[in-house]
Amino acid sequence: METIRTLRRTPIALPGEGRFLGVEQHAVEFPSGVVIDDWMWVITPEFVNILPRMQDGRYLCYRQAKYAADGLTLGVPGGYLEPGEAPLAAAQRELLEETGCTATGWIPLGAYVVDGNRGSGRGHFFLATGVEYRQPINADDLEDLEPILLTRHELEAALLKGEFQVMPWTACIALALLHEQE
Amino acid sequence: METIRTLRRTPIALPGEGRFLGVEQHAVEFPSGVVIDDWMWVITPEFVNILPRMQDGRYLCYRQAKYAADGLTLGVPGGYLEPGEAPLAAAQRELLEETGCTATGWIPLGAYVVDGNRGSGRGHFFLATGVEYRQPINADDLEDLEPILLTRHELEAALLKGEFQVMPWTACIALALLHEQE
Repeated sequence: METIRTLRRTPIALPGEGRFLGVEQHAVEFPSGVVIDDWMWVITPEFVNILPRMQDGRYLCYRQAKYAADGLTLGVPGGYLEPGEAPLAAAQRELLEETGCTATGWIPLGAYVVDGNRGSGRGHFFLATGVEYRQPINADDLEDLEPILLTRHELEAALLKGEFQVMPWTACIALALLHEQE
Repeated sequence: METIRTLRRTPIALPGEGRFLGVEQHAVEFPSGVVIDDWMWVITPEFVNILPRMQDGRYLCYRQAKYAADGLTLGVPGGYLEPGEAPLAAAQRELLEETGCTATGWIPLGAYVVDGNRGSGRGHFFLATGVEYRQPINADDLEDLEPILLTRHELEAALLKGEFQVMPWTACIALALLHEQE
């Protein structure tokens, strides 16, 4: 089976110098020979999400506002990679900055492209284990995060009720819960 | 806890008349009072993904090329909603068109926004049960899909190895597997 080839890339929008978003038009050749010359492609930064499991076995989540969510949502820690930063280093940095915690174990859960057609960045997921508080939180003015600790049963129930409204968060948690019961 | 308010929306790119992609710049007010007036927002169509469980208990997946994936990837059926179409109707239509199958049970697994900051559309996930072949496949020139049937054990192993490279597919399958063991 053949893959899909990129014949040309043309930048069409780079708002804010492309820090958070770039849009390109690609000419794309499919295995059948069909060429589409106005295929839209979206560039956003890579990011990490982490499900932190505390030393007592509970999971550290948030109740929070998020721009694309409807009202308040449950969430997990995460953020964009810094330029040149490895995903694990970003996950460790984000966990410490957002929660003041460190972890004794870091289990990678894979990397996934956000949109199979448009790209839209890549998310790297981790389960952090043996998590404990180490230092005060490095607060971010934009985010108003209320930490909550959930048992596995509570986390799984909230997940399956759709209370984590953002897809990467849901994917990260669901993968972590499946991984744990292997 | 307060939510985040949209103060203004300005269209900045609408390539191809916005059929697959639109970009807006929003002025956004955070609960702290901070206003960001160049917040990027991405509009793409809503979509469905389906994990089909056949009458013999195996799951119907694909091996396929996908533009944003690296080489070949495993995948599940899915596609964009037609204008005005309900998510369940879209899921039933896509399953029939892509696989030639119908299902006796449709279990909704929630709706999730793709990007918590930029929007980038919404995915609706379903587990379809009692799935069986009914009619020849309505082939799409662009997609070269090789159907494969996996046991639960094989599906979960492939999922946790990252063989489903596209985030919505991974999220749909992981949620379905957690739902089934409830």
